[in-house]
Amino acid sequence: MPPETLTPERILEATEEVLRRYGPAKATVVDVARALGVSHGSVYRHFRTKAALREAVTERWLDRTSKELSVIVATEGPAPERLDRWLTALFEAKRHKAGDDPELFATYMTLIGESGGVVDRHVTDLEAQLTTIIEAGVSQGTFHTPSPATTARAVFDATGRFHDPCYAPEWSRPGITADFEAVRDLVLRGLRG
Amino acid sequence: MPPETLTPERILEATEEVLRRYGPAKATVVDVARALGVSHGSVYRHFRTKAALREAVTERWLDRTSKELSVIVATEGPAPERLDRWLTALFEAKRHKAGDDPELFATYMTLIGESGGVVDRHVTDLEAQLTTIIEAGVSQGTFHTPSPATTARAVFDATGRFHDPCYAPEWSRPGITADFEAVRDLVLRGLRG
Repeated sequence: MPPETLTPERILEATEEVLRRYGPAKATVVDVARALGVSHGSVYRHFRTKAALREAVTERWLDRTSKELSVIVATEGPAPERLDRWLTALFEAKRHKAGDDPELFATYMTLIGESGGVVDRHVTDLEAQLTTIIEAGVSQGTFHTPSPATTARAVFDATGRFHDPCYAPEWSRPGITADFEAVRDLVLRGLRG
Repeated sequence: MPPETLTPERILEATEEVLRRYGPAKATVVDVARALGVSHGSVYRHFRTKAALREAVTERWLDRTSKELSVIVATEGPAPERLDRWLTALFEAKRHKAGDDPELFATYMTLIGESGGVVDRHVTDLEAQLTTIIEAGVSQGTFHTPSPATTARAVFDATGRFHDPCYAPEWSRPGITADFEAVRDLVLRGLRG
């Protein structure tokens, strides 16, 4: 049986597994190569440096959330309902990432600290999705804003407590859902106002 | 000349100075006593433990902001204008604390990590001030909400990026004022809506 082709995706999967097992301080490219049964040279052919590999695996982790949310952006229907679903799904996704596998979450927080550019791109992605929903609301006559992109950024900032990792310890607190709903309602009223 | 009376306020002033000089890891009650020219027993008569002293000095630091803001709550005038001034003043106060004396700010962040209760009381204070302004807006007919206290909490959460210390590194970024204004406008429209 010929060996499976070494794809970037297979390398990234193995990298996440190695990070989960050894933690971000100890995980090396040699560990990743060993897990795949290949030479570390083969890994370096796809990712030229250890930093590039770590950045790519972080981007993949963040992109999982963006992809989930893009489905909501692509649906039809009233913009306020879609915005509500989008904000709820973002909070849920982040809450699950933090709560279901706290060690891996902490690992990614370390990686994110190493490569600010990845987070900036992630935030840009999410704000672009929000802008699309808000523009739809303006077309439908339910949202009112002269600048959907500026307002999208304001909505993202205003809901930070429910998606920014610096608040992760709060997400398991009783009452956090009520807090989220109060901010979401305020934001939706602001868009309609 | 008789020695100055040893008041809690004088002890707290000296404690802040000692914290500034030695940092939170090294500062001791003996250092505070020495700075005041008294025995450490005299300090312990006012603050029964080192933890109590550290909590009190943290509370005093946070209360400086609450007191500044309470002046805005007490003024007359349209609620939206007062809310705008209050949010702007809170952002300014936090920004100055973080930017003018970053080492002392870092010291207080450490102290805050030690005593969660102090921050909870501070947040409760600030949310109560916001509730007062929102209630005034409801009476004046400019704000609409069935529950001013819930909405006050939502306003506080929604503006967290501009007062929560976890965002302090962002406060010197160009564009932060525009970001603040966009969130403030969204929140004000939400209250009017």
